[in-house]
Amino acid sequence: MKTRGFAVEVIDKVNKMQDRAEVLRTAGKSIALVPTMGYLHEAHLELMRVGKRHADVLVISIFVNPTQFGPSEDFERYPRDPEGDLRKAKSVGVDIVFMPTVEEMYPEGFQTTVSVARLTKHLCGLSRPGHFDGVCTVVAKLFNITKPHIAIFGQKDYQQLAVISRMVMDLNMDIQIIGVPTVREPDGLAMSSRNAYLSEDERPSALSLKRSLDLAEEMFKQGQRSAKVIKEEMVRFIESHPFTEIDYVSICDPVTLEEIDTLGESNLVALAVRVGNTRLIDNKVIGNTE
Amino acid sequence: MKTRGFAVEVIDKVNKMQDRAEVLRTAGKSIALVPTMGYLHEAHLELMRVGKRHADVLVISIFVNPTQFGPSEDFERYPRDPEGDLRKAKSVGVDIVFMPTVEEMYPEGFQTTVSVARLTKHLCGLSRPGHFDGVCTVVAKLFNITKPHIAIFGQKDYQQLAVISRMVMDLNMDIQIIGVPTVREPDGLAMSSRNAYLSEDERPSALSLKRSLDLAEEMFKQGQRSAKVIKEEMVRFIESHPFTEIDYVSICDPVTLEEIDTLGESNLVALAVRVGNTRLIDNKVIGNTE
Repeated sequence: MKTRGFAVEVIDKVNKMQDRAEVLRTAGKSIALVPTMGYLHEAHLELMRVGKRHADVLVISIFVNPTQFGPSEDFERYPRDPEGDLRKAKSVGVDIVFMPTVEEMYPEGFQTTVSVARLTKHLCGLSRPGHFDGVCTVVAKLFNITKPHIAIFGQKDYQQLAVISRMVMDLNMDIQIIGVPTVREPDGLAMSSRNAYLSEDERPSALSLKRSLDLAEEMFKQGQRSAKVIKEEMVRFIESHPFTEIDYVSICDPVTLEEIDTLGESNLVALAVRVGNTRLIDNKVIGNTE
Repeated sequence: MKTRGFAVEVIDKVNKMQDRAEVLRTAGKSIALVPTMGYLHEAHLELMRVGKRHADVLVISIFVNPTQFGPSEDFERYPRDPEGDLRKAKSVGVDIVFMPTVEEMYPEGFQTTVSVARLTKHLCGLSRPGHFDGVCTVVAKLFNITKPHIAIFGQKDYQQLAVISRMVMDLNMDIQIIGVPTVREPDGLAMSSRNAYLSEDERPSALSLKRSLDLAEEMFKQGQRSAKVIKEEMVRFIESHPFTEIDYVSICDPVTLEEIDTLGESNLVALAVRVGNTRLIDNKVIGNTE
């Protein structure tokens, strides 16, 4: 695809992407990867800008990965817009877009899984069994295909970032992982491709996630240290909004993701809430250093 | 370690090995890896000679990997001889020996596993639960640490070679896997570090593995196509030797490793037999093209 002066190179085959990456590496070029499921929005573009600053060549992947969706989840209806994605990728200076088919990524006979044990037993791992196996496996594949020196992920998916960082450390992948702060809409809603599912009626209720996090932080600042009390207040607040159904509200250790009873120096507040049919997540690290 | 004119470079840290490998790759050098658990013998050296022919730089790893041993297996008493190993490595022109500690490979907090599903549900996977998870995970780590272009494994560990090849394919590791035919003692016994466990009394019984494979091949040549009949004959033959206790005798598809009833064009005959306290394995592909 060539548009106005420079080309975004689109590659859809594993072998071709590997050869391309190998040539770049051997030429001494550093590679940054931003893995995405497409339907790009401002938060993705922010990850790409960070990638662009950290490496000579910016590769993004666009792949809606079926193995990280549960059987009753939204794989089929996950929003897709390849043309818009390429236009946006171009606008931030992406060099290569790796955009494979499902068959290219999971040919017949595929049977390998990468699993991270303890970190996935909390938060989203509980309500989405197998989700993080799917994430780790596809990210390991994407790393081996695009051969990046650094890879960039959003902190909105806090647990995903923690799990991938753990996998990279444990398997000695020689890749630097960078987490980028959550990008929000002007009204505070964390940006997500799934926000496109929200109806006009549901949208105000979607703001209850971010506002409940602010509420938790306010309570912490005023001296509250009981996770139970803070979570109860958050639940009450969220449930006062129509269309909301809470999946979890968690206050946990930001490293191990294990639930805590009493808040300490640094605490992760994380939640998942269904608003209508749309599952939204958000999180905030609160503590004395914030 | 420096001896007579050239040095075998010994590296015990992950980061240092990765940096070394990266410099080599960026300089356009190809790297071959032979992963071993040490106590090197002629069959290992044969893998190294093959590696030497295929790449500019030959790296071997020496690491007795605890996670591939079951709780009742021989991790503690597995034979070790680092000095002898380095001398032998030098004799075949190994350039770098990666020899980490267990703590360096599995620091506190380690929790990631690479699993291959169906191929590990047969043969040794049945009697050694978790064994291939341990193998895949450590090999994935060793690949990420030594960054080889090619890696060499023995066909004596047929299932291991099949499982690793599958992992490499599924996770898109850009590494060529080479399988090297089993190297045998003059009397036919497949070389293995575990042969060191065998007493003089047990040694003749250990030959029953290879001879039962020859027996299977002879029966096939004479027209026998029933896996049941051939396996019964093999079992009878092995059990006629003292100290033997059969773990499994299998005739299976050489690609899927699934048991077959009727032999076809190409068939894997594989077995594991305990001789005294020593578990031995061997295999042979028999068929019309042999």
